[in-house]
Amino acid sequence: MTTRREHAEQLDAADQLAPLREQFQLPPNVVYLDGNSLGALVNQVPDRLADVVTRQWGDHLIRAWNEDAWWQAPIRIGDRIGKLLGAGPGQVVVGESTSIQFFQALTAAARLRSGRRLVLSDLNHFPTNRYLAASVARLLGLEILEVSADDLQAALREHGSDVCAISFGAVDFRTGALLDIPQITEAAHSQGALVVWDVCHAVGAVPLECDADQVDLAVGCTYKYLNGGPGSPAFLYAAARHHAALDLPLTGWHGHADPFGMTHAFEPAEGIAKARVGTLPMLSLLALDAALDVFDGVDLTAVQTKSQDLGDFFLECLADLLNTTPELGVVSPRRATRRGSQVTLSHPEASPVMAALIARGVIGDVRPPGLLRFGWNSLYIRYQDLLHAVEALETVLSEGEHRRPEHQVPRLVT
Amino acid sequence: MTTRREHAEQLDAADQLAPLREQFQLPPNVVYLDGNSLGALVNQVPDRLADVVTRQWGDHLIRAWNEDAWWQAPIRIGDRIGKLLGAGPGQVVVGESTSIQFFQALTAAARLRSGRRLVLSDLNHFPTNRYLAASVARLLGLEILEVSADDLQAALREHGSDVCAISFGAVDFRTGALLDIPQITEAAHSQGALVVWDVCHAVGAVPLECDADQVDLAVGCTYKYLNGGPGSPAFLYAAARHHAALDLPLTGWHGHADPFGMTHAFEPAEGIAKARVGTLPMLSLLALDAALDVFDGVDLTAVQTKSQDLGDFFLECLADLLNTTPELGVVSPRRATRRGSQVTLSHPEASPVMAALIARGVIGDVRPPGLLRFGWNSLYIRYQDLLHAVEALETVLSEGEHRRPEHQVPRLVT
Repeated sequence: MTTRREHAEQLDAADQLAPLREQFQLPPNVVYLDGNSLGALVNQVPDRLADVVTRQWGDHLIRAWNEDAWWQAPIRIGDRIGKLLGAGPGQVVVGESTSIQFFQALTAAARLRSGRRLVLSDLNHFPTNRYLAASVARLLGLEILEVSADDLQAALREHGSDVCAISFGAVDFRTGALLDIPQITEAAHSQGALVVWDVCHAVGAVPLECDADQVDLAVGCTYKYLNGGPGSPAFLYAAARHHAALDLPLTGWHGHADPFGMTHAFEPAEGIAKARVGTLPMLSLLALDAALDVFDGVDLTAVQTKSQDLGDFFLECLADLLNTTPELGVVSPRRATRRGSQVTLSHPEASPVMAALIARGVIGDVRPPGLLRFGWNSLYIRYQDLLHAVEALETVLSEGEHRRPEHQVPRLVT
Repeated sequence: MTTRREHAEQLDAADQLAPLREQFQLPPNVVYLDGNSLGALVNQVPDRLADVVTRQWGDHLIRAWNEDAWWQAPIRIGDRIGKLLGAGPGQVVVGESTSIQFFQALTAAARLRSGRRLVLSDLNHFPTNRYLAASVARLLGLEILEVSADDLQAALREHGSDVCAISFGAVDFRTGALLDIPQITEAAHSQGALVVWDVCHAVGAVPLECDADQVDLAVGCTYKYLNGGPGSPAFLYAAARHHAALDLPLTGWHGHADPFGMTHAFEPAEGIAKARVGTLPMLSLLALDAALDVFDGVDLTAVQTKSQDLGDFFLECLADLLNTTPELGVVSPRRATRRGSQVTLSHPEASPVMAALIARGVIGDVRPPGLLRFGWNSLYIRYQDLLHAVEALETVLSEGEHRRPEHQVPRLVT
């Protein structure tokens, strides 16, 4: 009979994506299962960034805006991200944080359907989307109705012609559940509403098809599966068919038709450039640019398949522990095709359990209420890593390591 | 008789701030007079940033948010900037671009004076402020009246109790004119209005006294005189007396009282932390942190005095050229105390003249209509640099270098 260890080794040996791991600088003795929160460092980033700092900024100084094409970077890099979104060129721009992009996108969606007063918003949305949706609603005089994806069809039937926009997270940040993007988008359109997708927990892990699925607007971050670095700039996708009428609230000078004309009134640029706002943090932006090289030539369908297989393997390995530990539960969908690239478990002592795992070099995170998140970037995570994580969890729980005093200390960032 | 060259050398030899120049990595054969647009590279930034990239991000990964105190950085670095603003701790936060901070600040100011419907806005405001003020006005149902500082008192007398907020640039980005911050702030307050200052072109060059002057809100960028690097994060100052009622539109999760509680509704954090929005670009933010070390122990009054003296010297050196070149004019105030750290000239062929200067290694920039901007950071600019710039301008104009075909090509970023 094959042991778990042998099985993991066989799966790793057969993994076509395995060589990609060499493109990352992963610390020794760490199994990193928080790439869904902050991606790992890509080999070429330090040297590329050093060049940006010393040669472009240090030597070229202000001339770098022209000579090193800094000005064009948000659109150029947006197009690179667009390839991972299934978006043709000229529909994605990199910009300030996801929170800012969401504010832009939802306001624009509501204005494109002015007269309609209701936003249907994901009951399980990442908090910042909920908070900003409330702000948009207050500014525009809208109402928000929070619904789960399961209840969306009924809500659309009830409120159809009142609904200006719906907004969902493509992958639930807590459970890792992957929503049916084309189906939900089509449901919104059938009632004349627009859809704003948050793809933070999907981009780079799941092959998205924004153009083919007729997505209207999407926002996402680049520091999770795209490995852009801590807080690397976010992006906004707006389908070309909406560009002419797109009416954005953050009318910064970079979005002007003639930014250096410095004319009196705002006149939006053509195309996605109108969604630019202010001067972006070029060091973080160009670190992201270097990190994106990893995706050149990578088939996201293969990445997704590996993620699903990793998840199935993780759950297989966990089966005994789950059977013998009634307080440990599986929160993520059991069906691989319903998951993003993450499996979430529940445990009443999630925080100290995760602290004990981190002390053992297995890094995931926790989310309320009592959720242990294990996310993986299939570009660098191996089957043996997930087995190691399961073994660590088995040891932590069997030895009661999570009860030790040093693991009771709350951390600021969880 | 002392030559201009001897005079410059004497002034440099007597300059108490001269040693600070050694803290910057300035390219050879360049006189950099665009530090008012993008500051120069500070020596310790490359190594400090490399450490952030390889050790903090690469090795610590997600743990860096706690171990390297990334989470606290926007407030900690805000306090560092606060020292340059004359602001006590807990009133400045670093955040997304200046455009975003201005949108936050003006919206909050208007909400603090709800019922009043008029914003008095600087006729000479940097364009992004004008564009975003228009957006705020549209969202809140306000009106904007653009006035110059000279006309402000009359406008306040006429519209006093209608005015919710006034907004001015502390230093005019075109002319370098320095406004009277305490006087304008007091005038606004005398009518019950709040004031939002844009200090982009002042912070680091002029000693600001936000607390003492009773400034309500201020925003600024960190990539000009603060040398934070291209597009480094901006900041928002909000006086502590307004914190409790401060009602900001960009209710991102970093501004929540319990961000990792991930609760349903937005509940603002106490103090300036409520003005945080999304996850900031940590590489750019921590490069700024390293760059700010240059200001430790520096007396901004001495910096301002040197800036004024540099400007007087620049104008002295220019006197002959101005006399013999009727198409060349001085746009900046002649009185040193009325200037920031910049002298602006006018010339009908400003763009090719600047292109010819840049070809000679003298880097300034142009702004419409036909303005040549020469800005200096007195931490690293010498009197001999300004003499060199004048000599280059003399040569360009006398030789007609600006008429050469290669200098007629418009650059994207000017």
